[in-house]
Amino acid sequence: MHLRLWHTGVIATLLIATSLQGQPPAAVDKNQQLVQISTINALIKGIYEGDTTIGELRTMGSFGIGTLNHLDGEMVAMDGTVYQVTSDGKVHVVPDAAKTPFASVTFFEADTTTPSVDADSFEALQKAIDAGLPSENLFYAVKVTGTFPKMKVRSVTRQSEPYRPLTEVVNEQSIFDIPDTSGTLIGFRCPDYVQGVNVADYHMHFLSADKTQGGHVLGFELRDGTVEVDKLANYRLILPEDKKFLEADLSPGGDAAIHKVEKLTGKE
Amino acid sequence: MHLRLWHTGVIATLLIATSLQGQPPAAVDKNQQLVQISTINALIKGIYEGDTTIGELRTMGSFGIGTLNHLDGEMVAMDGTVYQVTSDGKVHVVPDAAKTPFASVTFFEADTTTPSVDADSFEALQKAIDAGLPSENLFYAVKVTGTFPKMKVRSVTRQSEPYRPLTEVVNEQSIFDIPDTSGTLIGFRCPDYVQGVNVADYHMHFLSADKTQGGHVLGFELRDGTVEVDKLANYRLILPEDKKFLEADLSPGGDAAIHKVEKLTGKE
Repeated sequence: MHLRLWHTGVIATLLIATSLQGQPPAAVDKNQQLVQISTINALIKGIYEGDTTIGELRTMGSFGIGTLNHLDGEMVAMDGTVYQVTSDGKVHVVPDAAKTPFASVTFFEADTTTPSVDADSFEALQKAIDAGLPSENLFYAVKVTGTFPKMKVRSVTRQSEPYRPLTEVVNEQSIFDIPDTSGTLIGFRCPDYVQGVNVADYHMHFLSADKTQGGHVLGFELRDGTVEVDKLANYRLILPEDKKFLEADLSPGGDAAIHKVEKLTGKE
Repeated sequence: MHLRLWHTGVIATLLIATSLQGQPPAAVDKNQQLVQISTINALIKGIYEGDTTIGELRTMGSFGIGTLNHLDGEMVAMDGTVYQVTSDGKVHVVPDAAKTPFASVTFFEADTTTPSVDADSFEALQKAIDAGLPSENLFYAVKVTGTFPKMKVRSVTRQSEPYRPLTEVVNEQSIFDIPDTSGTLIGFRCPDYVQGVNVADYHMHFLSADKTQGGHVLGFELRDGTVEVDKLANYRLILPEDKKFLEADLSPGGDAAIHKVEKLTGKE
């Protein structure tokens, strides 16, 4: 099976290398791979600047989530365009020259598509999706398109040096309750064993159909959703090599911190 | 900086794809990447059979460590040849058709070379190498060539189904004290935050210069060693998709288990 993937990789890489004339090639077996920049624990420790440009990120995936340098909002990549939801709730297209300190992307190709899905909460949708997965030990890209009678998202505020840890910064996050919207949930389900490297379980961002609203998903009600799942058995981690990342204390044990930065709804 | 790496990757991939005529290409920026098959926690849970052939593994790296299907001994890859140290202490060259359930490889290119290194223990060598590393947050391939007045290695015994967990199997490991040998330590230093996915900290195998002895390293004395370190900022995890891996309980928390299977010397 790996041989087949590698062969596909040869053809894809040759075509891309030929057509783009020296531009970065796509990753080998790009449709089967989650590519991640830095680690969630580094972000939690306040490593808010990276060297990877959005232009480079777009060669590694057309679908995904993350943030921008200086923790400047929530990032959503869909169909090759990278969007930024700033802390005022506005959505911007991100230029290729912008940089990201943390992102997860793939080239999304649905393995399964489930129409007409209703869910009364984020947790209920997760349970429904989990029930159809072949295993909790692989990575999955998840895309859910539908109408949302309720949608609760947050965005974080652009930071200045000296950077405080994300666990402090999220206390000042902007939370938006968007009523009666339609759009797309974009994100990943990662296995428990990468907690701290990425976010274990589901991590989703939202982008409205008219691309005017979105953010990091805290909760929703879903009606008539189409759930697409892309199984990813390859995981590629690209680590920063700047001084702050190299010197950060990234020792494990951040479950509580990750829960806080991912799920704080303002009610805790 | 990533752009430079990607450009190198284009050239390397094109050259390889042209010269090998349809054979699998090397990974993009192959000299900067640790490629890992499956997870150490899966191995600990008794997932002793994988689908990746040694021939495929050799396209992903020429240097590394692991084991063979059925947990049939300790694997060492050096200069593109893959060796197996079986539980009788003998060394065999592994054919390309053999398969591995767990392996870590790279294309080794030393970033630093330190001659004339003496160390009275494995722990002392680790401390000496650690002192020269730019960070504990990256991956490193480590190669140490020298003479060893003392060398303590172990190998595990080929298993049959139903497989028992590695924590049980290592109680029956073969331990060899090899006096006055020379050869090469081969392995990796992984950051703490991947404990359970790979082995945090150092994991080394040994191969004697005459390629007749070796195994998983438990301890040694080193004289006049040359220590080569290859910094790896890219980590690629290739997950199995067979039923046993998919159904395994790979939840985290295996620190004690990893310590036991990696460091059990028979004295505990």
